[in-house]
Amino acid sequence: MIELVLIGAGTGHPDHLTLQGVRALQEADLVLIPRKGAGKEDLAHLRHAMLARHRPDGAVAHVDLPRRDPSLPYLDGVEAWHDAIAAAWAQAVDLPQGGTVAMLVWGDPSLYDSSLRIAARLDWRPRVIPGITAIQALCAAHAIPLNALGGEVRITTGRQLREGGWPPDCDRAVVMLDGGCAFATLPPEGLEIWWGAYLGMPQERLDHGPLAEAAPRIEATRTAARAAHGWIMDCYLLARSA
Amino acid sequence: MIELVLIGAGTGHPDHLTLQGVRALQEADLVLIPRKGAGKEDLAHLRHAMLARHRPDGAVAHVDLPRRDPSLPYLDGVEAWHDAIAAAWAQAVDLPQGGTVAMLVWGDPSLYDSSLRIAARLDWRPRVIPGITAIQALCAAHAIPLNALGGEVRITTGRQLREGGWPPDCDRAVVMLDGGCAFATLPPEGLEIWWGAYLGMPQERLDHGPLAEAAPRIEATRTAARAAHGWIMDCYLLARSA
Ligand SMILES: C[S@@+](CC[C@H](N)C(=O)[O-])C[C@H]1O[C@@H](n2cnc3c(N)ncnc32)[C@H](O)[C@@H]1O
Ligand SMILES: C[S@@+](CC[C@H](N)C(=O)[O-])C[C@H]1O[C@@H](n2cnc3c(N)ncnc32)[C@H](O)[C@@H]1O
Repeated sequence: MIELVLIGAGTGHPDHLTLQGVRALQEADLVLIPRKGAGKEDLAHLRHAMLARHRPDGAVAHVDLPRRDPSLPYLDGVEAWHDAIAAAWAQAVDLPQGGTVAMLVWGDPSLYDSSLRIAARLDWRPRVIPGITAIQALCAAHAIPLNALGGEVRITTGRQLREGGWPPDCDRAVVMLDGGCAFATLPPEGLEIWWGAYLGMPQERLDHGPLAEAAPRIEATRTAARAAHGWIMDCYLLARSA
Repeated sequence: MIELVLIGAGTGHPDHLTLQGVRALQEADLVLIPRKGAGKEDLAHLRHAMLARHRPDGAVAHVDLPRRDPSLPYLDGVEAWHDAIAAAWAQAVDLPQGGTVAMLVWGDPSLYDSSLRIAARLDWRPRVIPGITAIQALCAAHAIPLNALGGEVRITTGRQLREGGWPPDCDRAVVMLDGGCAFATLPPEGLEIWWGAYLGMPQERLDHGPLAEAAPRIEATRTAARAAHGWIMDCYLLARSA
């Protein structure tokens, strides 16, 4: 029997890792490290730094991740892609007597991450070690609460915001997975934004203000930062102004 | 100048603490420890265990927290209470040359926690170290994703659910701060629940199933557990069945 431990690694700061995560890294029989394609070298770098620090000489297996077939309809493409990743994981793990395999997952494994869905394709037993999400990293960087007193918050995506607009009954929403600047498609009146990119990393960028003023600033920062680093990861909290 | 470092301590497991949290505890000039009133001794115990492990002989200041005046209208009462807590913090901190004061905050300081709002009443500079929230602890314990693929999730409270019912356009919601069993007030058809109490602690309890079947089970478990331990903290994810 193989136990797969998905360890939430946090969002880029090596010290986002929890003590539970450190222990799980140290106790695993094998650590599985996906080799991503182009870009995001900083992310692979973080994984290696965590291993070097907490598990300098344990067994490690690298796995080349297949790519999603862009010719398939989106959801079919994702299904086939997850099948292929599961097969690649299984192939990379050589533990005939069973054992514990650990993987470092960006942020927390429960939030907009596919590792659990991929693991469900294998007869491995999953175990999750929670980690700091981009949402906590965003709020921490701005030193703000996520919610208004006793209020509701939505977690949503750039795509939903772009396609659905600002929901009429919504006061606060965190937006993730925004490949562009979905906030700029909203009528900005009465909205405030707290934005963060590369949260937890040395190149962290923050902005905050009424959406009307902040949106063009953030768009410019985003373009420049992406050009400088070759990639960007950002998210933001939007709230109706009080 | 006083810097106040709010350290997310996680939701009950001593190893939820991040490496960043450990470091902030060790580097603080003073650790401020609220002395809560009756009940929840296990929570105070966790704080002391973290200190004993990571900062066995640093300076510590205990602060007796005032109580909320239940005779005031709710929001006025909270405002006055936060004023009083801020005053108690200020009184407990004796750092005439300034310095860094650390506090361990349950879960993450951004989520349904008042420390940042209280700190805003003082001319202290806040810094936040993110921590594991009950939401991550819940999903980790069940080894489930929080969101459906690319889908939206709401974070809400027992009170909102009880007063507003299940929002018509909502597919998934995490419910926190539920003093009762607000899930039992919903028409259960088509809803699934993942419930967890004392997440991360030795007495952790979990349940999962269609709401119609799980609701009475959870109500019974909750009553028994609260009687056994003298207090309970629970939260849950509700989702429309696929
Ligand atoms: C595939 S999701 C993974 C989320 C991750 N599991 C978590 O818990 O935060 C990636 C999205 O998370 C957000 N994100 C992750 N890390 C980030 C960071 N360091 N700074 C800003 N946003 C980040 C961005 O919105 C990005 O599009
Ligand atoms: C005042 S809020 C604080 C939340 C905390 N800041 C966090 O990040 O999780 C307390 C609520 O969090 C949830 N909660 C916190 N710790 C929990 C635990 N160990 N198990 C279950 N629920 C918990 C419960 O819904 C509880 O009513």
